[in-house]
Amino acid sequence: MLESFFKPKAVAIIGASTEPGKLGYTVLANVIESGYKGAIYPINPKASEIYGHKAYPSVLDTPLVPDLAVMVIPYQIVPSALRECGEKGIPAVVIITAGFRESGHEGIEREREVIQIAKEYGMRIIGPNVLGIIDTYTPINATFAAGTPPRGSIAFMSQSGALQTAILDWALAEQDLGFSKFVSLGNKADISENDLMLAWADDPESNVILSYIEGVPNGKEYIRIGREVSRKKPILVLKSGVTEAGSRAVSSHTGSLAGSEQAYDAAFYQAGVLRMSTLQELFDNARAFAYQPLLQGDRIAIITNAGGPGILATDTLERRGLQLARLEVETIHKLEEFLPDAASAANPVDVLGDARSDRYAKAIEIVAQDPNVDGMLCIVTPQAMTEIAETANAVGKLSQRLDKPILGVFMGEARIKPGVDVLASYNIPNYKFPEQAGAAFAAMRDYRILRDRPDPEYVTYTVDRATVKQVFDQVRAEGRVTVGEAEARRVAEAYGLRLPANELAATADEAVEAANRIGYPVVLKIASPDILHKTDVGGVRVGLRSAQDVRDAFDLIVYRAQRYVPDARIWGCLVQEMVSMDGVEVLVGMNRDPQFGPLVTFGLGGVLVEVLKDVTFRVAPFGKQDAYEMLDEIRAAALLRGVRGRPPVDKDALAETLLRISQLVTDFPEIVEMDINPLMVYEEGRGAITLDMRLVLKD
Amino acid sequence: MLESFFKPKAVAIIGASTEPGKLGYTVLANVIESGYKGAIYPINPKASEIYGHKAYPSVLDTPLVPDLAVMVIPYQIVPSALRECGEKGIPAVVIITAGFRESGHEGIEREREVIQIAKEYGMRIIGPNVLGIIDTYTPINATFAAGTPPRGSIAFMSQSGALQTAILDWALAEQDLGFSKFVSLGNKADISENDLMLAWADDPESNVILSYIEGVPNGKEYIRIGREVSRKKPILVLKSGVTEAGSRAVSSHTGSLAGSEQAYDAAFYQAGVLRMSTLQELFDNARAFAYQPLLQGDRIAIITNAGGPGILATDTLERRGLQLARLEVETIHKLEEFLPDAASAANPVDVLGDARSDRYAKAIEIVAQDPNVDGMLCIVTPQAMTEIAETANAVGKLSQRLDKPILGVFMGEARIKPGVDVLASYNIPNYKFPEQAGAAFAAMRDYRILRDRPDPEYVTYTVDRATVKQVFDQVRAEGRVTVGEAEARRVAEAYGLRLPANELAATADEAVEAANRIGYPVVLKIASPDILHKTDVGGVRVGLRSAQDVRDAFDLIVYRAQRYVPDARIWGCLVQEMVSMDGVEVLVGMNRDPQFGPLVTFGLGGVLVEVLKDVTFRVAPFGKQDAYEMLDEIRAAALLRGVRGRPPVDKDALAETLLRISQLVTDFPEIVEMDINPLMVYEEGRGAITLDMRLVLKD
Repeated sequence: MLESFFKPKAVAIIGASTEPGKLGYTVLANVIESGYKGAIYPINPKASEIYGHKAYPSVLDTPLVPDLAVMVIPYQIVPSALRECGEKGIPAVVIITAGFRESGHEGIEREREVIQIAKEYGMRIIGPNVLGIIDTYTPINATFAAGTPPRGSIAFMSQSGALQTAILDWALAEQDLGFSKFVSLGNKADISENDLMLAWADDPESNVILSYIEGVPNGKEYIRIGREVSRKKPILVLKSGVTEAGSRAVSSHTGSLAGSEQAYDAAFYQAGVLRMSTLQELFDNARAFAYQPLLQGDRIAIITNAGGPGILATDTLERRGLQLARLEVETIHKLEEFLPDAASAANPVDVLGDARSDRYAKAIEIVAQDPNVDGMLCIVTPQAMTEIAETANAVGKLSQRLDKPILGVFMGEARIKPGVDVLASYNIPNYKFPEQAGAAFAAMRDYRILRDRPDPEYVTYTVDRATVKQVFDQVRAEGRVTVGEAEARRVAEAYGLRLPANELAATADEAVEAANRIGYPVVLKIASPDILHKTDVGGVRVGLRSAQDVRDAFDLIVYRAQRYVPDARIWGCLVQEMVSMDGVEVLVGMNRDPQFGPLVTFGLGGVLVEVLKDVTFRVAPFGKQDAYEMLDEIRAAALLRGVRGRPPVDKDALAETLLRISQLVTDFPEIVEMDINPLMVYEEGRGAITLDMRLVLKD
Repeated sequence: MLESFFKPKAVAIIGASTEPGKLGYTVLANVIESGYKGAIYPINPKASEIYGHKAYPSVLDTPLVPDLAVMVIPYQIVPSALRECGEKGIPAVVIITAGFRESGHEGIEREREVIQIAKEYGMRIIGPNVLGIIDTYTPINATFAAGTPPRGSIAFMSQSGALQTAILDWALAEQDLGFSKFVSLGNKADISENDLMLAWADDPESNVILSYIEGVPNGKEYIRIGREVSRKKPILVLKSGVTEAGSRAVSSHTGSLAGSEQAYDAAFYQAGVLRMSTLQELFDNARAFAYQPLLQGDRIAIITNAGGPGILATDTLERRGLQLARLEVETIHKLEEFLPDAASAANPVDVLGDARSDRYAKAIEIVAQDPNVDGMLCIVTPQAMTEIAETANAVGKLSQRLDKPILGVFMGEARIKPGVDVLASYNIPNYKFPEQAGAAFAAMRDYRILRDRPDPEYVTYTVDRATVKQVFDQVRAEGRVTVGEAEARRVAEAYGLRLPANELAATADEAVEAANRIGYPVVLKIASPDILHKTDVGGVRVGLRSAQDVRDAFDLIVYRAQRYVPDARIWGCLVQEMVSMDGVEVLVGMNRDPQFGPLVTFGLGGVLVEVLKDVTFRVAPFGKQDAYEMLDEIRAAALLRGVRGRPPVDKDALAETLLRISQLVTDFPEIVEMDINPLMVYEEGRGAITLDMRLVLKD
């Protein structure tokens, strides 16, 4: 897929310039100097030859049909040039030129035209407004960047071209930061992250996909494609723009809890994508994924020639939820046989500051054989006796025979450099500080967990869509967006949520019959369209425990209502189940994210939801495992498992409620916000009851 | 203070060796090559001259009395050599030699002997088991390290010498990582962090104190000295060893919540010390403190030549609680006058990728004048037109005229280096990634807050120490460590905590009188040393609302008790205040930390304390401000301020309770654990009541 971009047999540079310093010159020079082996056609009506290559007035004139055209021309003539590409039959075009969507109204119009032309001819576009694209294996560098990054296994796409110039400059100075692809996405008029993830999924030259994004164009597709591709290789993403506009109007608790950052976090998780929080983390972790086998377990062995850094490494592993491998007794014995007395043969293994490379080598060989070790972290500080390059060589040789990841922490700079170079020659990433290596191991663990998650098992309950549709039609017919309490009740019932039992009784006899069906104790409430504040007229009686109680209450309530509001239409009384309050109050909510659609919230309910904001999110529709995971993700999860002798709550009922809500908000895109707060959940087997539900429809 | 170590007029190297490669040679060579200008006395009984300096058989033979002796001799002869130093009158000794406390029982004994000798002669010791010490201004390098770090304003002490060799190697390759002092503390037999903090507080060559520690020897002193020194300059610390043994027996909630890491966090805060979480953070932030003026407000302006990094910088500032400066309309107008249309004149100011140094320079000059800007973050990516060194020069020139901190984020490596060098020449730290600069600004803000905290205002309440002492004596006399309920009640009352009112009544009349005093409703409980399970014999009646209720209950309870337990001694009934449950349940606890002593906990009480672990800590004794701060530090702080129309709780009562507990646990070091859970706190003016208090005394 998208082969024409990355493995073109012939390439046209439209706007190739004869003048060094111009972008049109730099792009052509980069294509040539990167060692590109296909045909190169500079397109320039005023030149006959540029940089030793015959130039053509138009792509229409080239001898072969180029697979790829790169445009470096004024935006005014992009449409006509693009049309010529179409006529010629060129399948792939990179539009470096700026002046489109990013530059206001006219630019948006121009970009629309470009998309239209591309569609017409079935061309694919990268850009406009990009640095260009690089494939180091073809090789081709079709950018105006100042150099070609070292070849490696990292496929990198970025919404910011300028950021890439910095990364490139950095990569040129590093030993272990090599790229397979280096693509600037710019305005994403056509090709976006989704296309490239798919295209790179099976690319044998790329072991890890990196992506810097400011926004995702198609959230649902992103999740679907991410899930598919992340099964094959890790996807690391740095998403910027976490600041909230904060201007969005919110009318429910859920609304105030869920921002677009929460949606991104949930979506990345559901897409199997690892979200990084800093640029440094992005590249630190990329190096581990690019060059080392995946961590198969969480038990890390640390080998060090210095105590302090060993402790720091231990700290960082434990903080990130990895384990310090517990070495076999036999391993420890073997280590003790040759290590000095003052050394530590337990993990972290400290071979001491006076260790030469032979002692270090022997120690890592022994530790590597231990079945309890899943990964190794090799720390070296440059002490007086330290043989840095030789030690690095020993680590490198071991890594060739080992199917476990090894990360280097050769600390320092000048004296350490020869060691870092040796490590790089063995594809072992080196980190300046132990904390970075710990983070890389944690990222590997996180990826393994994401990769191994089964595909979502969607559940479809038998529900009554028609009723909900009818309710919503009615609400809209009345020009409202807020769904009333009784209406919300009908919606909830239609989607199989359990509510307090509730019957209308016109007479005292009917009330008693209803109470008998519901079971005592019950609550009676006056039923009248004209009485809003029921309590004010003595229209509510709770805790009625017998038929006699119900009969008395009915007569009393109706009598009082008639007396206080003489004109009221009295329908009788609502007989309601009296709900037990001995459960745990939780919240289930939803708001609609502009990028990803319905974002479902789960958290502690009641007063604490506002105070603690202890909530978790999923983009709907989500599967069964997601629903159960949500229950474990809140900080107060232990409350659901039961504390201080209280029994665990009915998790099945909670998960089912979440899944039914997922179905509801997927079925009805007009729901923009909803929440159930509280949902009262009881002990196992006793289910959950929706006590209050609110719904807001699209304006 | 400690001048002899850092500014010696003459120095003796005891164990100076004639053999290159030996530590005794390296130390001497370092002293000489670092440019030390005082007298240098190699001490070696077998040599007459080493490295061009006359050698002496013993320190007793040197012409002048050295201020400093550095020992690089086998541990066996350290004591005798040290005694000679004492005889000679040498005030300061660095013992590089290892083989002391770190190497087991005999080593501990040897170290004790060394301390003894030093005390005898009034000598101060650094070490044993150290890399040595460096002062780059004297200059003197009395270590066996491979080089002298660049001169600068960072004073660095480390418990790990090996870590320092790595940092040194790194510093030698960096432009902006310079040190004033570089001290290895090793076993800290005498001189510890506390001494060096004090010594460096007024050192004009040091702008910031850095410290890598694995443990603090004297916690109380550390807090006191830290507080004093951090008023003058920032102290940054990296504390390793966060892993808990987890083996400590705990018998209360507080015990399980408070580990030694919590004690360190609290202590560092109270000491005004900034705790760093990684090595990188330690040095990244140190560079900002060392070379830039302090950030006086939280409003940062970002100037960039690339959009993406500008957004990343914005993200990191907001995440860390800093603000994006809101530029004056006038500033924006001035920027718009010369910036291209596609540029952004609002913060972050984007001068675009094609900006040459003049455009960048003009933009930063204008932004720097804006009164709403407290600090500036200058981002440069290496794009085609970028004039890197010239741009750096403009930033540097501006910084010379500006009393606001400027941090550079010149991103990349090879092409960027000339710019980084220029920045360094102006003392502007550069960071590879915007996130690091954001972190440095945040550290500056954090330091300002710590520095500006007033000294703790200790409160001493009038309490009844004698009673508590009597209770504890009684408990110990009975061979117990756990204080009983009634005893705990006496302790609480003695320290002025409010408890539910409680009176013993022998007759019904007395009970009524007591109830009248306490106020209705009351609770009556049978009072008998022979009846443990009061409820089982119908010995408790709650919610008594009148004299008649009390009289009836008294007679009924006593009658029943006599009937069920005929032999029981009946003292009458306890009349108790019936406590209102409409407050908020919180927890106040204490456990005793081995390093810092009494660590007081405050948090949410009830069942949520275990689930959410929403607690905060202070080392006692602490001041009034600390007590109020604690109330705001828990995640559920909003609950105390009042939510959903509930009134705020009585914070004064909470703070007073915390201060009284601080006083109690300071007065009685034999209390190893205590907690009040719950402490029920009511709305403002209604105070707080201790409902359950537990105390455990030292074994």
